[in-house]
Amino acid sequence: MRDVFLGIIVQKYGGSSIANAERIKNVAKRIVKTKNQGNSVIVVVSALGDTTDNLLKMAHEITPSPPERELDMLLATGEQVSVALLGMAIYSLGYEAISFTGQQVGIVTDAVHTKAKILDVRSKRIMEEIKKDKVVIVAGFQGVTIDNDITTLGRGGSDTTAVALAAKLKADVCEIYTDVDGVYTADPRMVSDAKKIDEISFDEMLEMAATGAKVLQVRSVEFGQNYGVYIHVRSSFSEEPGTLIKEADKVMEKAVIRGVTHDIDEAKITILGVPDKPGIAARVFRALSDANANVDMIIQNVSEKGFTDISFTVTKDDLIKAKDVVDKIVVELGARGSLCDENIAKISLIGAGMITHPGVAADMFSALAGNNINIEMISTSSIKISCVIDEKDVGVAVRALHDKFGLGSNRG
Amino acid sequence: MRDVFLGIIVQKYGGSSIANAERIKNVAKRIVKTKNQGNSVIVVVSALGDTTDNLLKMAHEITPSPPERELDMLLATGEQVSVALLGMAIYSLGYEAISFTGQQVGIVTDAVHTKAKILDVRSKRIMEEIKKDKVVIVAGFQGVTIDNDITTLGRGGSDTTAVALAAKLKADVCEIYTDVDGVYTADPRMVSDAKKIDEISFDEMLEMAATGAKVLQVRSVEFGQNYGVYIHVRSSFSEEPGTLIKEADKVMEKAVIRGVTHDIDEAKITILGVPDKPGIAARVFRALSDANANVDMIIQNVSEKGFTDISFTVTKDDLIKAKDVVDKIVVELGARGSLCDENIAKISLIGAGMITHPGVAADMFSALAGNNINIEMISTSSIKISCVIDEKDVGVAVRALHDKFGLGSNRG
Repeated sequence: MRDVFLGIIVQKYGGSSIANAERIKNVAKRIVKTKNQGNSVIVVVSALGDTTDNLLKMAHEITPSPPERELDMLLATGEQVSVALLGMAIYSLGYEAISFTGQQVGIVTDAVHTKAKILDVRSKRIMEEIKKDKVVIVAGFQGVTIDNDITTLGRGGSDTTAVALAAKLKADVCEIYTDVDGVYTADPRMVSDAKKIDEISFDEMLEMAATGAKVLQVRSVEFGQNYGVYIHVRSSFSEEPGTLIKEADKVMEKAVIRGVTHDIDEAKITILGVPDKPGIAARVFRALSDANANVDMIIQNVSEKGFTDISFTVTKDDLIKAKDVVDKIVVELGARGSLCDENIAKISLIGAGMITHPGVAADMFSALAGNNINIEMISTSSIKISCVIDEKDVGVAVRALHDKFGLGSNRG
Repeated sequence: MRDVFLGIIVQKYGGSSIANAERIKNVAKRIVKTKNQGNSVIVVVSALGDTTDNLLKMAHEITPSPPERELDMLLATGEQVSVALLGMAIYSLGYEAISFTGQQVGIVTDAVHTKAKILDVRSKRIMEEIKKDKVVIVAGFQGVTIDNDITTLGRGGSDTTAVALAAKLKADVCEIYTDVDGVYTADPRMVSDAKKIDEISFDEMLEMAATGAKVLQVRSVEFGQNYGVYIHVRSSFSEEPGTLIKEADKVMEKAVIRGVTHDIDEAKITILGVPDKPGIAARVFRALSDANANVDMIIQNVSEKGFTDISFTVTKDDLIKAKDVVDKIVVELGARGSLCDENIAKISLIGAGMITHPGVAADMFSALAGNNINIEMISTSSIKISCVIDEKDVGVAVRALHDKFGLGSNRG
């Protein structure tokens, strides 16, 4: 792995890396150091510490369901504060910096407020300032519609901003700075011997992110994969290399299982006694999509006497929206009713080699059974297996799987 | 005075009127009430409570002298938070609202960061939304340069935003809501029998604002005068009418003295022993203007042996900047040195009738002398007399003048 990338480097700093004045100044020093190595540096930042949560709290003091356009207007201020303060910190070190909102650098998105997708990056202004030898600082997480309305990209959207900029500017690398030093075989807070992964493929990282590894937003990994952007996830508190995400054929190490992830932010909804006719599932999930509720796992059991049950998971944030849709659909379809369970956890096993080892699923299920853990839903892809279990069992389950597949650093 | 203005009404709410969720909801109710009376309502808001001070504190934790472009980027977030929250509050009452930043409604300014002046208001987007029957909420205090950089208009700039919008939209009235119920004959916190002024001319209000009445920003009054916008200063906590500011010939009540104002936010600088040659004063004040330091009173004493002293006042915020300029000039001109005094107060007597009553100045000076108050500087215009005195005497001086000229409500 190259240690120094000469050329254009995009660096993204998360909220905990810039939570206070001292940390902002430290980040400024790191940026200046990268610049002094001969690189042009574009920096993307999130909102300071728990700013976004505080802004959401303010909104909810006004109304339990704030209109999403106004919510974006509110939330976008968090990153704007960060870019301004970081710009000041770089200035105070004697370097030139210029900060921008998403609107100012032309991060053009669709109009799906609170979950907008990037359509285009108009990087003209950035390149002008880079040529003037300035450090360019861009507010992550936010964009603007063609009608000039402010949008946000959803939680963790700053990662997507950073990778999108790296793609557009053909940067050598997109460094994602965070408070952990890379991607781990499991959550180190849950599994004491979890091991840092040095290199991982886009495909594997996608599944890790999609199934609960919070270190990167799924969409940023997709962006990286689509545009071939090397993503380096590393700690803003150390100089150690972190985890490099790149194309599969360039990953040196091959492993059957790459890691265990878990996610306790989802809830399960079941529609009971749905008439088993063509077009029913389409109607359910079209309605959920129209309401902008992101569905993750979907299970439809085999039909019995012309009726079936459909279960799916959504993030807890979307639960009220999804429940509203389902309540209407139950009436429309003449279904028997619906159930809702917030106390679930999804645990997943990720690894590119899995497809050629059919015993993996069986090993996973037996490891769970051996700990008396009941499996409520199962979903598989070529490189992952996910199970929904009771939330209370999540720690035991993750440790059991991490152990079963020998992922710990003592055995590494 | 008309109580109900049918048509377009611009309302501006200051930071204390929207300091918390409850107050924001109350303001939303007032807006909806105005709308239900058949008006189109455009609302301009400041930052919540002491947000601006908190943001400045954050900046100063990073560096004692933050670059002004980045400072504007930072401060502009305060009003953006306000417009979003107020938009949500109006929605929650079942009405449509849409919030905008200064950039979004096209408040185009020059590029003098932290003190930008409005060059143009491109109100197209506002009119589109008004036609859709929405309440339009605009972030005060902020604008955008033609290069799309965010600017701010200086303290109290939200008033200017409101009056500029009222002028551009040909609004019937611009209501400035604040935490006091109008303009007073003196600061009611200092003078117990100070009286609310029902109507006042633009000229008089300009002098009141310029000499310390903090209820309105000077520039907003100038804007109102230039474009003939009726400005109604009133309390957001009551339904009582406040003070109406309009053309002089439409002011019903005539009074010799309208009010007493005071200002303790200025400092005095004296340049000692300046060679008394043509062009010297121009050089001094050009240099101060280039450094963007706002000079208020200027006094040059008569020359003695070819040397003179020049004294002037600046706001305490600009003192460091002004002192730097003066230190250089002292060396350049071979002046004897400079003095600086922060412990001063400016007290002023305002009234359109003053010019026809030459005894007013003498009465003012003797009232001060009668209280053993030394006058350090004097400056006059056709409708005001200002004196600089020691800051410790300000309360006694204001009460003495208020009393001397019979401004109290008991004698009204």
